Amino acid sequence: MKRPKMIYIGNVNSRMPTEGPFVDALRELGDLTIIRDGSKMPDKERADLIRQHNILLTMWGSMPVPDEIAEDRGNLEYICNITGEMKHWISLKIIESGIPVTNWGDAPANSIAEGAMALLLAVLKDLHGHIQNVRNGNWEPGENSPGGTLENLRLGIYGLGVIGVRFVELVKPFGPYIKVYDPYVNELPEGCLRAESLEELFDWAQAVVIHAGLTDETRKSVTADLLARLPDNGIIINTARGDIIDQDALFAELEKGRLRAGLDVLAGPDRVPPDHPARKWENCILTTHSIGRNQWFKPPGGLSKMELICLDNIRRFINGQPLRFIMDRERYLRST
Amino acid sequence: MKRPKMIYIGNVNSRMPTEGPFVDALRELGDLTIIRDGSKMPDKERADLIRQHNILLTMWGSMPVPDEIAEDRGNLEYICNITGEMKHWISLKIIESGIPVTNWGDAPANSIAEGAMALLLAVLKDLHGHIQNVRNGNWEPGENSPGGTLENLRLGIYGLGVIGVRFVELVKPFGPYIKVYDPYVNELPEGCLRAESLEELFDWAQAVVIHAGLTDETRKSVTADLLARLPDNGIIINTARGDIIDQDALFAELEKGRLRAGLDVLAGPDRVPPDHPARKWENCILTTHSIGRNQWFKPPGGLSKMELICLDNIRRFINGQPLRFIMDRERYLRST
Repeated sequence: MKRPKMIYIGNVNSRMPTEGPFVDALRELGDLTIIRDGSKMPDKERADLIRQHNILLTMWGSMPVPDEIAEDRGNLEYICNITGEMKHWISLKIIESGIPVTNWGDAPANSIAEGAMALLLAVLKDLHGHIQNVRNGNWEPGENSPGGTLENLRLGIYGLGVIGVRFVELVKPFGPYIKVYDPYVNELPEGCLRAESLEELFDWAQAVVIHAGLTDETRKSVTADLLARLPDNGIIINTARGDIIDQDALFAELEKGRLRAGLDVLAGPDRVPPDHPARKWENCILTTHSIGRNQWFKPPGGLSKMELICLDNIRRFINGQPLRFIMDRERYLRST
Repeated sequence: MKRPKMIYIGNVNSRMPTEGPFVDALRELGDLTIIRDGSKMPDKERADLIRQHNILLTMWGSMPVPDEIAEDRGNLEYICNITGEMKHWISLKIIESGIPVTNWGDAPANSIAEGAMALLLAVLKDLHGHIQNVRNGNWEPGENSPGGTLENLRLGIYGLGVIGVRFVELVKPFGPYIKVYDPYVNELPEGCLRAESLEELFDWAQAVVIHAGLTDETRKSVTADLLARLPDNGIIINTARGDIIDQDALFAELEKGRLRAGLDVLAGPDRVPPDHPARKWENCILTTHSIGRNQWFKPPGGLSKMELICLDNIRRFINGQPLRFIMDRERYLRST
């Protein structure tokens, strides 16, 4: 068992803690150097420093890994990216150099599924319309407020990966009918029906929740034609990727008030301009790709899921076991 | 088996359907007269008409039952109030006269529990703040947005009747720790801890959901002292009765931004004036006693829970079986 030398180099916006239970746990596993703000350090010096360590830790607010590390890695054997996103500080060149790079894997699955539940219930209960109605000095929402219940709702799920499976666990006790479209999944959770096509899913469903990944096959796969199959006040929830939906088509339906939506993600740059009318549509809730965040409190023991996954991978590295959630070119290119 | 004569007499705002599956099902059980708008009929004539029937149906938008029915009920044997509320059209005198009066019983339990879940998730994810932030032309909520997760949250439940039990079923898969305060319940659902006092509950919890009934014991039982025990950004959800909370104390905590709340019910008149600042507090969602409404669609078969309970009670009446959810003086006085 070797005791690795580990280093983290942040920029001025570094979000790596410098003390607390996570840092303590890392220090138990190896020697840890944390450079809180390495933004003024020349690239060459940073590269040399990294080469003197076995593991480089990265996360939101890291300084970029110099590309020259791809050619000469020195003692560096492993880059452990504590979060999911990495494109802003780890280049494709680094990924292709063969240094193993891992990320948080399935850590956010629960919080994304929970976020989708929050959006589904909020849209179903017309909370945006309700909040504005009360803010405007009115009280009861009136007969036209399309508040509904999940009980006996016909709920379509598009994509049944780790997040979709978790979502089914959360929504099932509410008593909806559930139909799933995912041609790559052979066995569905108990009580779920299968849709053989997206057309079948959208013909049947009153609300559709998207948990698919973004691929050439899924890109813009939620078309104007599919959206037109949903009933009036039908609901689209998207916490996956904005580009899965033909956003122009969805926005047209939302603008005329025919459908409702809860969108954590949007097409392209994943946001709308400051003056975009969608910001005020009461049949729509936009949560700016942050519905899965948990900034309020740390779980008991003080270690979050992404921290536990990082520690597990470092232990695996030390013990010579296979790392989990290794990035390859394809996953990297598909990632945020 | 007798075939009862049934009558319903609405006012100008009657919400009783005059056709459709519920009316069809009623007509299968007996002879049904529906007077859509009986507001111009003299009281005496209305009383005489009611006396010619065995069952009087009432609901939102019914004409009042004349008090003289209490003294001379004629053929009337049973008043079936299809909804919950009845004080505006059935007097205590009628209840005390001994004519059996029933209401919808546990029909709304699921939708209230579901509404509490919607409010809990919306407040926990800071949706009101999020919506206003996006409406104001901003995007990401920033580091101060207190978005959280139910996973490992310390969730207190005050009152474990039919609604509280259903709420536990819905929230459990999300993975919170659950502690219950209800001195009248001997056995708690699996995995729930017991609080021996409200002080213990509020000392422990990060969020408290109220599912208690309103009694002398619970009135204003959520005091300033209890609220002060919750942590910063702690959450109160109330879909039960507004008067259970010392509202001045809660509003003081909300105004200074220390706590968060989702309130379907409020103290006293159950609303705030049009210019009340609470309407715009972003750490608070007010849903005007309508979170449990379902106006979007009818369940399959076209019969809602309250309609199924009404039909069940009429069948029981016909077959001489005990009616369910009979009102007595005490329940009547405690009801909305």
